[in-house]
Amino acid sequence: MTATQSTPSQASNVPAGNLGPAAYRQGRGGAITVGIVGATGYAGGELIRLLLGHPNVELAGLYGRNRDHQPIAASHPNLSGSGLVIDGAIPHADAIFTALPHGVAAGMATEIVAQGSALLDIGPDFRLHSPADYPIWYKFDHPAPDLLTQAVYGLPELHRAEMRAAAGRDVTVIGLPGCYPTATILTLAPLARAGLIADLAVDAKSGVSGAGREAKADMLFSEVNESVKAYGLFSHRHTAEMEQELQAQGEAGPLLSREANPGVATVDFLPHLIPMTRGILTSCHVRTTRPVTQEELDSLYAEAYQDEPFVQVVADPPSTKHVFGSNLCRICVKVDPRSGRVIAIGAIDNLIKGAAGQAVQALNVLFGLPETTGLEHYPLAP
Amino acid sequence: MTATQSTPSQASNVPAGNLGPAAYRQGRGGAITVGIVGATGYAGGELIRLLLGHPNVELAGLYGRNRDHQPIAASHPNLSGSGLVIDGAIPHADAIFTALPHGVAAGMATEIVAQGSALLDIGPDFRLHSPADYPIWYKFDHPAPDLLTQAVYGLPELHRAEMRAAAGRDVTVIGLPGCYPTATILTLAPLARAGLIADLAVDAKSGVSGAGREAKADMLFSEVNESVKAYGLFSHRHTAEMEQELQAQGEAGPLLSREANPGVATVDFLPHLIPMTRGILTSCHVRTTRPVTQEELDSLYAEAYQDEPFVQVVADPPSTKHVFGSNLCRICVKVDPRSGRVIAIGAIDNLIKGAAGQAVQALNVLFGLPETTGLEHYPLAP
Amino acid sequence: MTATQSTPSQASNVPAGNLGPAAYRQGRGGAITVGIVGATGYAGGELIRLLLGHPNVELAGLYGRNRDHQPIAASHPNLSGSGLVIDGAIPHADAIFTALPHGVAAGMATEIVAQGSALLDIGPDFRLHSPADYPIWYKFDHPAPDLLTQAVYGLPELHRAEMRAAAGRDVTVIGLPGCYPTATILTLAPLARAGLIADLAVDAKSGVSGAGREAKADMLFSEVNESVKAYGLFSHRHTAEMEQELQAQGEAGPLLSREANPGVATVDFLPHLIPMTRGILTSCHVRTTRPVTQEELDSLYAEAYQDEPFVQVVADPPSTKHVFGSNLCRICVKVDPRSGRVIAIGAIDNLIKGAAGQAVQALNVLFGLPETTGLEHYPLAP
Amino acid sequence: MTATQSTPSQASNVPAGNLGPAAYRQGRGGAITVGIVGATGYAGGELIRLLLGHPNVELAGLYGRNRDHQPIAASHPNLSGSGLVIDGAIPHADAIFTALPHGVAAGMATEIVAQGSALLDIGPDFRLHSPADYPIWYKFDHPAPDLLTQAVYGLPELHRAEMRAAAGRDVTVIGLPGCYPTATILTLAPLARAGLIADLAVDAKSGVSGAGREAKADMLFSEVNESVKAYGLFSHRHTAEMEQELQAQGEAGPLLSREANPGVATVDFLPHLIPMTRGILTSCHVRTTRPVTQEELDSLYAEAYQDEPFVQVVADPPSTKHVFGSNLCRICVKVDPRSGRVIAIGAIDNLIKGAAGQAVQALNVLFGLPETTGLEHYPLAP
Repeated sequence: MTATQSTPSQASNVPAGNLGPAAYRQGRGGAITVGIVGATGYAGGELIRLLLGHPNVELAGLYGRNRDHQPIAASHPNLSGSGLVIDGAIPHADAIFTALPHGVAAGMATEIVAQGSALLDIGPDFRLHSPADYPIWYKFDHPAPDLLTQAVYGLPELHRAEMRAAAGRDVTVIGLPGCYPTATILTLAPLARAGLIADLAVDAKSGVSGAGREAKADMLFSEVNESVKAYGLFSHRHTAEMEQELQAQGEAGPLLSREANPGVATVDFLPHLIPMTRGILTSCHVRTTRPVTQEELDSLYAEAYQDEPFVQVVADPPSTKHVFGSNLCRICVKVDPRSGRVIAIGAIDNLIKGAAGQAVQALNVLFGLPETTGLEHYPLAP
Repeated sequence: MTATQSTPSQASNVPAGNLGPAAYRQGRGGAITVGIVGATGYAGGELIRLLLGHPNVELAGLYGRNRDHQPIAASHPNLSGSGLVIDGAIPHADAIFTALPHGVAAGMATEIVAQGSALLDIGPDFRLHSPADYPIWYKFDHPAPDLLTQAVYGLPELHRAEMRAAAGRDVTVIGLPGCYPTATILTLAPLARAGLIADLAVDAKSGVSGAGREAKADMLFSEVNESVKAYGLFSHRHTAEMEQELQAQGEAGPLLSREANPGVATVDFLPHLIPMTRGILTSCHVRTTRPVTQEELDSLYAEAYQDEPFVQVVADPPSTKHVFGSNLCRICVKVDPRSGRVIAIGAIDNLIKGAAGQAVQALNVLFGLPETTGLEHYPLAP
Repeated sequence: MTATQSTPSQASNVPAGNLGPAAYRQGRGGAITVGIVGATGYAGGELIRLLLGHPNVELAGLYGRNRDHQPIAASHPNLSGSGLVIDGAIPHADAIFTALPHGVAAGMATEIVAQGSALLDIGPDFRLHSPADYPIWYKFDHPAPDLLTQAVYGLPELHRAEMRAAAGRDVTVIGLPGCYPTATILTLAPLARAGLIADLAVDAKSGVSGAGREAKADMLFSEVNESVKAYGLFSHRHTAEMEQELQAQGEAGPLLSREANPGVATVDFLPHLIPMTRGILTSCHVRTTRPVTQEELDSLYAEAYQDEPFVQVVADPPSTKHVFGSNLCRICVKVDPRSGRVIAIGAIDNLIKGAAGQAVQALNVLFGLPETTGLEHYPLAP
Repeated sequence: MTATQSTPSQASNVPAGNLGPAAYRQGRGGAITVGIVGATGYAGGELIRLLLGHPNVELAGLYGRNRDHQPIAASHPNLSGSGLVIDGAIPHADAIFTALPHGVAAGMATEIVAQGSALLDIGPDFRLHSPADYPIWYKFDHPAPDLLTQAVYGLPELHRAEMRAAAGRDVTVIGLPGCYPTATILTLAPLARAGLIADLAVDAKSGVSGAGREAKADMLFSEVNESVKAYGLFSHRHTAEMEQELQAQGEAGPLLSREANPGVATVDFLPHLIPMTRGILTSCHVRTTRPVTQEELDSLYAEAYQDEPFVQVVADPPSTKHVFGSNLCRICVKVDPRSGRVIAIGAIDNLIKGAAGQAVQALNVLFGLPETTGLEHYPLAP
């Protein structure tokens, strides 16, 4: 990108009315202009970092509540040297990323799409298809149900075609997947599509950055270090997202009815907080609807992911360390010869493939770029 | 204990032929003399630390391969000040603890019991009842199948009466439970006893000290830190122990046949390594054989554990930090109102309740002391 | 101790007017009654844990702002099982420990000593001898300068006689040392007493629990993990304490004038925050006033500490892990054969020898008990 | 770079006799071919990762003892997807990086330079100018003293011109700086050049990856976690390097004799191991040869580093987290108003600016590329 050193809040080269993915893909020219609303949290910071390395993007504006005109380095000392400064308004740009507490992006969405920008929400406001799910899982009434109807669940590996279609419309709203769902849905989709999930326990482990940057006593180093605990029993909001998407995979499969995967009707999702900063490991314990062989599993996953640049199917259980800093999802699936159960394990960097990297990947899909643009980094180890 | 400053390998106050729990409980008098074989590993060190604070124990000898006459502080710098020194032979004592790689204690057992000592094996050599299980799970033929027949699985909360009975016999051999089984069996026993386990996934997380002290490249700080992974898929040796004990609980329950808990026939056990030193959290996902209410669960667990000094049934998911440094097992059990599944979670300090503390608890049972003697420590936090 | 299960705020066995160390040492009988003001922070919790294991203490009351009648386990889940509950008033007891933000204990002190209680302040309000130092280093005017005059700096290894003397007076106020000063002063005292410190750089590293339990964004796990930084340059409040005490040691030495140790006139103290929960390591770089040999150093330190139960002089640089969970201070001092500089390194557990354990040690001194009572724990490793 | 999927051990496009920086800079064309000897350690892995992202480099061969024909992913699972395989011989390439135990690269050096390759040694074999220093500090006699004479200390910020000059010669040997010296020399060079260092204590803290990848019991997670210790007192090999370079800066300064900085004659260097994977923080305590003001310090450092792309002089003490994953060195220098002492603190990622990134920077210097090529990454936080 071109690091815009002062405080641009306008993508001045692009005439109003000529913003958004459709205009860009029709050959408008110039860089893709991008704005970020909610630039001061962990996902926002990571997104800026990635966009600073994206060759086709111009960062047209950053917005963060109560931080107008502050250098971004005050929030993200690692970005000192970028010269970026926080603006005082929602940027005018081809694409606006929102990384905000739930309910906030939904309230801004109408204004954002009205200016022609594609809206890519890193938060949860456009993930669930049914407005009725918001009061149940998120405790708020969705303020923009019409936009919600037009929103696409932005997991390119499963919804690439829908995303591209959305990019050609006047209104482009992408609900980017949550961190746990990204890892879990990718790990289970081939099984769900084949109607193989009879019963399912999703036991996930997350680094602490997923809890965000707000000062909370139970996220202090002294509390988290040398400890592990489960949390959010039976009520974690990401459950709804996993159920929606895994059920949809069942429907998508060949010859499958809605009841293909009884195990995904109510996903047993148990998240854990572990003493690390980044990374999610999701361990999925599956009772299958019929006996499967390892060969069948290997085929299913190879077929599903062999052309996916960011999904690696591996023979040994993956470590989160080996995807740290990358947009990769590494998956291992095995059948237990004693019991016939299937264990499917997925690893991602929660701030990249689980948030900011996935957001950039979605941007690439919308604007017709190679999907790996700006996301080629190998993981960083040790 | 009396810290024996030089290198005693004899409990000299006790005439030969007068050793062991039966002699002690018949009023022999004096301290309980104790020896440790395998004193230089993590479990051995923790056991010494605990026994140094035990009011009724005299540490009669320590043995560690190739370290004869070394101060124990060379192996365990935290025990500098104890003045203890490693001996060159198996100690002559009322009780011998073995903390050794699998197969080694079994080879020494005949000699140890012949001198009248109770044998308490912290390793796995006397945990499985059937000799036939050893070649399958541990890849060795058990060298002392007769002793194995007489061994008791030393989890006092479930086998206290058998342990006491064994203490009255000429041969007293206790197979102390493994770290994962301790947490998991205690967490599930009330459900198993009630015949409630229709299907079961045990997803456990362990600190690294459970992997022992041997220099292995994949246990280096740089490899483990900021990472989580599953390991031992379908083959972890502790699986056999869980199956044996949970099946036995099913049989022990009222009106239950062997088939009471189909979910424990083959336990789906998936252990994970997480970046902390101590602690195990076991998260058990249970499909029940019939619908249960939270009230029923609460009653089952209260009844099972209300008189147990080391088991705390709590209302919120436990953190391993809050049992760190103690012999406690903290358990939380909840039914999912949406799906009817039960989640049962247990937390222990793997080196204490999962190894050395449990060993001391068993010693107390065998020698007729209050079970908490020397184990009264509150957990240490943060 | 006797865990007082309900919420006692009175040491009812002890008639008013008969409280405090003098009464106790004159044979009053009964347990030492103890109250804690500021029970909900890390130091308070650790103090409760230690006192629960102290054989001569009865915990007569706990006080924590805005938490009246809450179980202590709500603040310290590791103390669940103690049955302790927070009271609504300052306890009436032989000794009151205060673990409070600076300035608060000083405001309560007159009331506490008026009831006959000894006051042991874990905070800084009674550490500096000169009232004039408080506005400079702590930015408040000391509200009880008369009590400050009578206060003793409660580091038993250096001020045991003064502490005993204070215990015989009507007013007993102990200013317990800060965590960094405890480690640093013990590490340097023999050098200072011998007038050997010509120049001094104290470079210290602390675990995060020293920053307390308040929710601060820069103490979040995600911020502290995988990072190290210096902080408090030239202004850390513990500097004043080190200067006061090291200068006093210089005066205390044989034949030494005030100018014995020019290096302690202004201590160059640089603290660092490192990614661990507990522990302080202080690395002291000393230019000596004259050449010294290793033998001379060894003699100086052996002489100073050979009878101290909590100070261990060791031959190799100590790890904080090897004093974790104990009241020990482990010290190593070496002269560089190339340059003649001396490196003196000290390690403590900041919450024990640096706070709560030291407080219990001081209690033992005041009430005439063996100094190790309730503090016999070996460090817990790994 | 072009990821060469099979196992090329020859840069086949480049005729023999036409290798090395001089040929390249004279317009030979094509990519810079690069080989790595010692590809399986942490520095080697990091170097591969960086070179995979370098636009002008072709990775012509990897060599790692006893791993011929293994995929690199077996050593570095994060590099799975690169398709790289380890070769069985020293590669034939424009530049050979060696990342080997001390003494090994020196033994291979003659062969490497004979084929025309520039040799960039990440190990210590070409850092010290005097062959006589090797038996003293490294305990071996240097096998190639002639090459050592021609070697340049490869810290571009101080020796850029010499490095460029070396690139024009037939024999190009670069001794790349050690991790501690990189941070420390950059942090102190402006003071040394101004003849300001009267006395110096360097107190450094390193993450564990600096200890390498060999399985050592004291580098196990359980030993390092929750602990800090000093090591290598008075004998750390990096001391020699710091003394050589800081003394040279003194000579380089205006009007300075060799005795300009008495404090660097024998550097008091005390390294510490802290529980993190990556990062070095060096805290330098300086007594100055004359009084200095903060303004003077600010000017000195601004002048020294304002045009350096990888050195950032900052106003607040830097955290290693904020340079993690980058080639940056962040420096803060302050004068103590009370004592006049100067504290200078530097932070780097030890595997990047302290090893592999610095190596790539040196490659860029030698081959005439912009110095930041392939090293533009912002640090990755949190």
